[in-house]
Amino acid sequence: LIAGKNEKNLFEGAIDLTHELANGMPVYPGDPVPSFKRTKTVAHDGVNLSDLNLGSHTGTHFDAPRHFFEDGVPVDKIPVKDFISDALVLDLSFKRMGDGISSEDLRKAISSTGSELKAGDSVILYTGCSDLWGKDPAVNSNFTYLSGEGAKYLVSKKVKAVGIDFLSIEQFHSKTHETHKELLGNGVYIVESLNRELKKILGKRVLFMFFPLKFENGDGAPCRALAVPLS
Amino acid sequence: LIAGKNEKNLFEGAIDLTHELANGMPVYPGDPVPSFKRTKTVAHDGVNLSDLNLGSHTGTHFDAPRHFFEDGVPVDKIPVKDFISDALVLDLSFKRMGDGISSEDLRKAISSTGSELKAGDSVILYTGCSDLWGKDPAVNSNFTYLSGEGAKYLVSKKVKAVGIDFLSIEQFHSKTHETHKELLGNGVYIVESLNRELKKILGKRVLFMFFPLKFENGDGAPCRALAVPLS
Repeated sequence: LIAGKNEKNLFEGAIDLTHELANGMPVYPGDPVPSFKRTKTVAHDGVNLSDLNLGSHTGTHFDAPRHFFEDGVPVDKIPVKDFISDALVLDLSFKRMGDGISSEDLRKAISSTGSELKAGDSVILYTGCSDLWGKDPAVNSNFTYLSGEGAKYLVSKKVKAVGIDFLSIEQFHSKTHETHKELLGNGVYIVESLNRELKKILGKRVLFMFFPLKFENGDGAPCRALAVPLS
Repeated sequence: LIAGKNEKNLFEGAIDLTHELANGMPVYPGDPVPSFKRTKTVAHDGVNLSDLNLGSHTGTHFDAPRHFFEDGVPVDKIPVKDFISDALVLDLSFKRMGDGISSEDLRKAISSTGSELKAGDSVILYTGCSDLWGKDPAVNSNFTYLSGEGAKYLVSKKVKAVGIDFLSIEQFHSKTHETHKELLGNGVYIVESLNRELKKILGKRVLFMFFPLKFENGDGAPCRALAVPLS
């Protein structure tokens, strides 16, 4: 496929960017508390079965335009090819936790990759907040976010999707939701709560794949997300 | 990657093999009835959010070895590279609905593809039952299945995963679960309830990707499944 790698070699290096869905996992403050329960067991019933109860934005998940726009496309109507793209993994961990990422920050991070951001590429933002996932509840309401101005810059660069490594891409408890609206309103998808495995691929070009549940008219959905290093 | 296609061309042709998760959708008789509910709306709350309540084997889903073996690997401990493989899409729709697929049936279907089944390939079984998904409840308890003998054949061929286009790969209400146990006990993964889009790729070699939710210690999980035609 890329750089002379064959398919087998390529996917052997796939990195799982997905958090475990588990009882007690972090959620955006105010979101429903998910519950995962074994309902049948091999010992008693000959088979293991479980029930899953969770909000549409639990754990590593996808935001569809329908999240903020009643006429925006829902998760089940997006062609699966849109869930696969090249991406640059940007290191924004120089930002102070709780601060907003600006276009200047993005340009600096892109420049330091030595690679070019092309139309149709995605970007994945590593803020470092993922290092505190499940370890420090304070960060759940004080995480680094993408500013509205930074979002406008990424829209102007015609990116396909923006991933980030914590609960939301928006400033905590924003009243205006300008970042979500700028991205989703311009057809740029969002993936939130990627895990700290991103540290293995900082500054790299990757094949980014995220596969949300096909939830009818869904505003968003939990997904499996992975990256295949290309450079 | 394959046959001179570049990455962009390749994924443009991706076919979604996943059923919509929706209220009223078919489930294996006796399984929990899933529920999907909008909990916040743009009109009232400025944002759309939803709750998802579903069994671990709802809709298009993945069976991990933990489904039938307490010491089998759960869905969250399987490396993501295992969710990506070449597959042959086999047309078994010549079988009478409700009958079991034998090794002879499989050999016949493989032979008619003109392609060879190699160790590490997956197979996807199209039975035609998917054409009746949500249309004829009678098929929900009388679908074509893979016999234990057929499962043994696929294990002997060292396949990676077996997909099928209806609620279960096992004879309805089997007491012995021989098909699941033969496959999962030998490390062969199972994907059930693929949709009828398979008809577009019958007899073809595809890149088969399925991405189950990363549910901790999960016996299985809903997944997004897709196929990228290679031939």
